[in-house]
Amino acid sequence: MGLSAQVVETDQHKLVIISEDISSLPTHFFSQLDGVDRVIRVQTPCPLALGHEGPAIRLDNGATIGGGGPIIIAGPCSVEGRAQLIDIAHRVKGAGAGGLRGGAFKPRTSPYDFRGLGREALEYLLEARQATGLPVVTEVMSAEQVELALPLVDMLQIGARNMYNYELLREVGRSRHPVLLKRAMSATINEFVQAAEYILLEGNLKVVLCERGIRTFETCTRNTLDLSAVAVLKNMTQLPVIVDPSHATGKRELVRPLSRAAVACGADGLMIEVHCDPPRAMSDSSQAITPAVLADIVDDARAIHRLLNPDKALSCGSAPLSTAVAASTLSG
Amino acid sequence: MGLSAQVVETDQHKLVIISEDISSLPTHFFSQLDGVDRVIRVQTPCPLALGHEGPAIRLDNGATIGGGGPIIIAGPCSVEGRAQLIDIAHRVKGAGAGGLRGGAFKPRTSPYDFRGLGREALEYLLEARQATGLPVVTEVMSAEQVELALPLVDMLQIGARNMYNYELLREVGRSRHPVLLKRAMSATINEFVQAAEYILLEGNLKVVLCERGIRTFETCTRNTLDLSAVAVLKNMTQLPVIVDPSHATGKRELVRPLSRAAVACGADGLMIEVHCDPPRAMSDSSQAITPAVLADIVDDARAIHRLLNPDKALSCGSAPLSTAVAASTLSG
Amino acid sequence: MGLSAQVVETDQHKLVIISEDISSLPTHFFSQLDGVDRVIRVQTPCPLALGHEGPAIRLDNGATIGGGGPIIIAGPCSVEGRAQLIDIAHRVKGAGAGGLRGGAFKPRTSPYDFRGLGREALEYLLEARQATGLPVVTEVMSAEQVELALPLVDMLQIGARNMYNYELLREVGRSRHPVLLKRAMSATINEFVQAAEYILLEGNLKVVLCERGIRTFETCTRNTLDLSAVAVLKNMTQLPVIVDPSHATGKRELVRPLSRAAVACGADGLMIEVHCDPPRAMSDSSQAITPAVLADIVDDARAIHRLLNPDKALSCGSAPLSTAVAASTLSG
Amino acid sequence: MGLSAQVVETDQHKLVIISEDISSLPTHFFSQLDGVDRVIRVQTPCPLALGHEGPAIRLDNGATIGGGGPIIIAGPCSVEGRAQLIDIAHRVKGAGAGGLRGGAFKPRTSPYDFRGLGREALEYLLEARQATGLPVVTEVMSAEQVELALPLVDMLQIGARNMYNYELLREVGRSRHPVLLKRAMSATINEFVQAAEYILLEGNLKVVLCERGIRTFETCTRNTLDLSAVAVLKNMTQLPVIVDPSHATGKRELVRPLSRAAVACGADGLMIEVHCDPPRAMSDSSQAITPAVLADIVDDARAIHRLLNPDKALSCGSAPLSTAVAASTLSG
Repeated sequence: MGLSAQVVETDQHKLVIISEDISSLPTHFFSQLDGVDRVIRVQTPCPLALGHEGPAIRLDNGATIGGGGPIIIAGPCSVEGRAQLIDIAHRVKGAGAGGLRGGAFKPRTSPYDFRGLGREALEYLLEARQATGLPVVTEVMSAEQVELALPLVDMLQIGARNMYNYELLREVGRSRHPVLLKRAMSATINEFVQAAEYILLEGNLKVVLCERGIRTFETCTRNTLDLSAVAVLKNMTQLPVIVDPSHATGKRELVRPLSRAAVACGADGLMIEVHCDPPRAMSDSSQAITPAVLADIVDDARAIHRLLNPDKALSCGSAPLSTAVAASTLSG
Repeated sequence: MGLSAQVVETDQHKLVIISEDISSLPTHFFSQLDGVDRVIRVQTPCPLALGHEGPAIRLDNGATIGGGGPIIIAGPCSVEGRAQLIDIAHRVKGAGAGGLRGGAFKPRTSPYDFRGLGREALEYLLEARQATGLPVVTEVMSAEQVELALPLVDMLQIGARNMYNYELLREVGRSRHPVLLKRAMSATINEFVQAAEYILLEGNLKVVLCERGIRTFETCTRNTLDLSAVAVLKNMTQLPVIVDPSHATGKRELVRPLSRAAVACGADGLMIEVHCDPPRAMSDSSQAITPAVLADIVDDARAIHRLLNPDKALSCGSAPLSTAVAASTLSG
Repeated sequence: MGLSAQVVETDQHKLVIISEDISSLPTHFFSQLDGVDRVIRVQTPCPLALGHEGPAIRLDNGATIGGGGPIIIAGPCSVEGRAQLIDIAHRVKGAGAGGLRGGAFKPRTSPYDFRGLGREALEYLLEARQATGLPVVTEVMSAEQVELALPLVDMLQIGARNMYNYELLREVGRSRHPVLLKRAMSATINEFVQAAEYILLEGNLKVVLCERGIRTFETCTRNTLDLSAVAVLKNMTQLPVIVDPSHATGKRELVRPLSRAAVACGADGLMIEVHCDPPRAMSDSSQAITPAVLADIVDDARAIHRLLNPDKALSCGSAPLSTAVAASTLSG
Repeated sequence: MGLSAQVVETDQHKLVIISEDISSLPTHFFSQLDGVDRVIRVQTPCPLALGHEGPAIRLDNGATIGGGGPIIIAGPCSVEGRAQLIDIAHRVKGAGAGGLRGGAFKPRTSPYDFRGLGREALEYLLEARQATGLPVVTEVMSAEQVELALPLVDMLQIGARNMYNYELLREVGRSRHPVLLKRAMSATINEFVQAAEYILLEGNLKVVLCERGIRTFETCTRNTLDLSAVAVLKNMTQLPVIVDPSHATGKRELVRPLSRAAVACGADGLMIEVHCDPPRAMSDSSQAITPAVLADIVDDARAIHRLLNPDKALSCGSAPLSTAVAASTLSG
């Protein structure tokens, strides 16, 4: 027929994506084919992000992102040592966090700056995970780091600097591991969802989007947090969306008000940098908050979520698809 | 002594501003002078915005902005006719709005577009004010328009396009009328507060700041709403800060989530475009919401404010100053 | 017929602009009307900027902008005193400048900064003009300043901060005086040409556009000079376009290379800040160059223009219109 | 002594970089050490980009970038087939180009778009190189692609989307192959030179910087070409700087004027998309020019360069260092 299609095998089903114009072909043309359960026509640059079955992503430790109350992922910018990490992990758990973050491989603007403890840090993260039961997320920047991190952490983070690194996106897509994808500083919302689409197309539907500020002329804040993007993304996709107010603002006194705002406009969670002794943090010290402030933020987030979602059913299942044909992707 | 000073006479007191470096002079040097009640040293580009007595601004109709619950100012982008305005005024009041907006003089990018009904619209606004008791705000763009609007409306709006129009800022400063100052699309937060300072320096302390989105590369939204600015402005100044999610996003489906976010991060109010028949609005139709949605937003705003300010005393007085010496303004 | 039209009377002819969709009406429908010389159909947001008769604007002193070699307008940011101005005027003339700039009324971000000598400066400018024969341009920010400057200067400048001040644009339009219109820091090219259209619509066709940098995230330069805009504007309009590399870059060492680039991509001239003792300039000292560097820039500009326009006829007349009907303005 | 140092071995010498504050240590402290030839103290975030021996980079085919006349690298966005590439290669050579570009691996915003012919395209590039003698540059996006391209092309391109992909920068650094590094859409100039520093630190000094437009609010052009960056980079570093007006503007009619401007402000070369049948190009068709226009641009570039560099010695050697100690890198 001359149509080219991409086949995506996820853990539960098989999707066939036709990204050409099929508006002239009737739906039953596809639905009558053998093995086709359901046909979906969408006009979107991101058929998988929009069309997949639902917003909740379950991590190995049982934590869920999307579909229920807000999850707070907290921890130090960099893993600085074993004792520091275990200590902070217990404290963020005590403050109510549902996940632990910690940088093992640090992308730094200058090659002369501290670049993280690497493999050693991954082992401390595993230990902290075992000690607290918190699922762990860490950033990876290359295929080699994906391989190292995969057996040790619950979720792989693609940082803002690598959102356009399509080879890496495909790599974490193939891993089938949950992925936290951060928006690049210069990415339009359209580019952001299409970056997610690269991961989804490898059959990995466990993608969480993270708004973390875009680059503008304003210099009072490190970046400009674009909370409108959260509302847009919730309309455009079925993916969970969380917000990182620490990197967005770069100032600890702004983390709490922006955390409140993020949850109020519908974010499924927050990612926050916490340090027991913020002024001594080895990276990003000006934006780290203490565990005590984190506890307040967790309380805020839960209260706002409850207030605005009084009847929310905590389960979020919709009927699963087993095969879908999604037509007419649009270029962003 | 070679120091140059600016004298500001407000309705209640007289301020003397010395914007040179006086760090070497002891405070008692000034406090011992005749008629000096109090000496304040501040390191800020906006000594009046930071130093004045408190956040609440009372409009003629008794409405208050700042210091209490959130105020919602709502109404059509343009006043399109007498009947339309009276109708919408009653409806926004019914929805819980505390103020009425309506454009008489419309700044339009193209000189070929509808520029508002002008003087005629001002009279309809007065009538709507009398019919509903709602205080009224309208935009002015020249000294002549200030003169026309002054006796008829409760608050003069300086739009984003005129934030850098320092002659107009001084004009509304001299009017002593409450002023709603919108942030320019390209203004840094520092420039924004210094624009307010132009008004304050004329002795008019009744200035409300309004964040309405800045210009960025993102095209999914009309502008990028900068909610971090709300939190920064609340730290940098004593002025009330409200948010306009309608102009910021340009899309009606984003108005409610961003309204929630604005109040959650501390905004003192919202300015929202409402139209009884949004698709037929003569300007900005894609961002207007209906009165029914407005009612939901008012409920959200009140509930979020109550949740986050459980113990807030509704009065907001601090000891008034009668004379102040503010030192060392910094250039932004 | 239900069509609304705007009538523009310029010094030479009368234009009738119909900004509605008239694509269904044949051209002869208009051309057969009494007194219609010519009918022009354009699909543009700026029918006057595109449709008027040609690029050259003649100032009172005989200088021409557009259509011939590049004009260099140079002088101090602020007029600081009589002696300073006369001295610098002679020097910029000696360096080959074709116009003198000097700020009498200075728009300053902070109300605590030096705001120019005002009316006094206008008189010094007139004196410098008489002493050197150079045409003079100065910025105006209000109707009152237009009135003061009109009899004394050759060209009125609308600064970047007032590009969206439509009341002021109409005021300088009504003056029929040559106008230098600077692009706002946040203005799209479409908004820029439509701001010019406000002036043209008052019958004043003597408008020169000035690109002076836009606001971006880059902080190495004060603004980001958008030279693509020069090429776009030359295609979109018939108006002369000059470039201000001083405000764009904010750094004196960048003025010469960017001046070369501006002329190379087709600018009709340059506006440059020159000071005899740059470090002591009362405003914008870091971007002022010396008269000696100016002389090099004038030489560069002439040589590049000659190289790239070997056959350029110096006269630039095209047949004048006396009445035009321009259809279908597009919103930007 | 507690100082940490990074050792860089280049093809000619060994550099020792100390990026801590050594302002209190006298220069002879280092110069007396065994094997130290020369000590350089610099206050810069990019000691290698600033301190290395000179601007010229020699490719295998004998072409030189930097230090002499402008080099024009031209060719199709994507390699679309063998015949197309050989044809266009002969034509760009005929037009005066000094290098051939062609995309084998295409980074595309949407995973549903054409992503290049891959390995097959690399072979066509080699063939085109052999047929014309033109050195060839192609983009790589992963370690695997570096390995594939290395034996076949003269220069590896890091595209704008991968400028922050530090693992890839280190990979091409280790390759010792000439690298063309494009500025990311959101990169400050400081971040750009520090990305280059990642490559240089691996001992690969053959880095050419390429300005290709940054992301701003302007929508008339695809990006905003930042020619000020060229002048800044020439002051901040010793690296050659070229400009890509095709991606910057996204419009073929703007390529020639901006090419002229780029060379006029000091660029060492241009990178331009050329297609024999631009409207049929498989990617970026709206910005491709024809070989005939390219020939005009080559002529322009040479003439402008000659005009502005009358005495330029074509050789650009400065005394080579064999060991250097560069102090105090600054974070950007």
